Amino acid sequence: MRKAFQDELAQVGDELVEISKLVATAIQNATQAFETADVDLAQDVIAADARIDFLQNALDEKAIDILALQGPVASDLRMIVSSLRMSASLERMGDLARHIAQLTRLRYPAQVIPASLQDTFRSFAELDIQIANKVAELLETHDLNVARQIVRLNLEVDELHAGVFKAVAADDWSGNASTSVDVALASRYFERFADHGVSVARKVSYLVNGEWQPEEIGGA
Amino acid sequence: MRKAFQDELAQVGDELVEISKLVATAIQNATQAFETADVDLAQDVIAADARIDFLQNALDEKAIDILALQGPVASDLRMIVSSLRMSASLERMGDLARHIAQLTRLRYPAQVIPASLQDTFRSFAELDIQIANKVAELLETHDLNVARQIVRLNLEVDELHAGVFKAVAADDWSGNASTSVDVALASRYFERFADHGVSVARKVSYLVNGEWQPEEIGGA
Repeated sequence: MRKAFQDELAQVGDELVEISKLVATAIQNATQAFETADVDLAQDVIAADARIDFLQNALDEKAIDILALQGPVASDLRMIVSSLRMSASLERMGDLARHIAQLTRLRYPAQVIPASLQDTFRSFAELDIQIANKVAELLETHDLNVARQIVRLNLEVDELHAGVFKAVAADDWSGNASTSVDVALASRYFERFADHGVSVARKVSYLVNGEWQPEEIGGA
Repeated sequence: MRKAFQDELAQVGDELVEISKLVATAIQNATQAFETADVDLAQDVIAADARIDFLQNALDEKAIDILALQGPVASDLRMIVSSLRMSASLERMGDLARHIAQLTRLRYPAQVIPASLQDTFRSFAELDIQIANKVAELLETHDLNVARQIVRLNLEVDELHAGVFKAVAADDWSGNASTSVDVALASRYFERFADHGVSVARKVSYLVNGEWQPEEIGGA
């Protein structure tokens, strides 16, 4: 019985890792489609998001079953509750990758982002991919150094996001209204994606420490 | 013991209602500040959001304590798990009201929205306020008719959101880049606020029916 219970808990952990890897693939493909105006790849990302949603639901149902049938306490209970929350963050990250793919499809065959900001969005993409990969690593290892790295990467994302708004507001900005809107929304999607990565990092920290201590993980 | 447990469950329900009322006040004040460029009221909304976040944390801790100490099953367990999820949605609604207030503060003393779209954003505000009030009513009554009304109001919000993007892309749009960006982001905030309202409606439906049935609540 006890052994079966531990197996079930481990399975929830494994499924979280599996979802996080799908999210990492989603942001990798979404940003590649976005940068190269590849509408087929964008379409793949949009279709693949349904699988993330499905796995999230399945994981949540399993977590609720464990709560009902096993009545876990202490660290096991924390693990189950955190899993419910982390799966919600991962699902949102998948949605945001999908939104990036949808923007790509909407503007095809044109690029979403004008030439003057393409370097910025390449950096955004690299950071979000790194964050997604680190989220998967963190869920596998529970290594809080990785959680700290995620927090630091997010600070870089926030800087890029602020930079995009400055660029659009600057006198030399030449984009039309639709371009301005696309740029702002895309920037917001990249920024929110990273925020959810931090959210997972916090929850793993809560799992490991029993409490979320921003100063512990947030750094200077 | 059993009585104490039922009291605790009822308290969680009461606290959800309390948070939802604060969210309703937040969106009411945020939209008023937004429409009248009232920076003091915007500041109040921003400050008040901390209370929503605090209450959400307190509610989540209480819910986890109940899981740990009482090991609830069946409908009690569903209620606790749903509360954890609904509190997250309410907290995000509070954040979105705060974002609307922050846009107001950023552009003060100017209006965020140009004259040509002010009617649209007044409708947005009315719909989001209605949704927030109905969310509070739904949490108090668990009346699924109210859940259906929320879903219908959200469809109107989605239409407005699509209309804003059309207006910004139209040939006669005269806003500059910053205005275009502000309009797009504000529209996104109003739309996401309503989405989270639907999310709560779904969770109450799950509570009442044991399962979320989109056709049950979604309507045509």
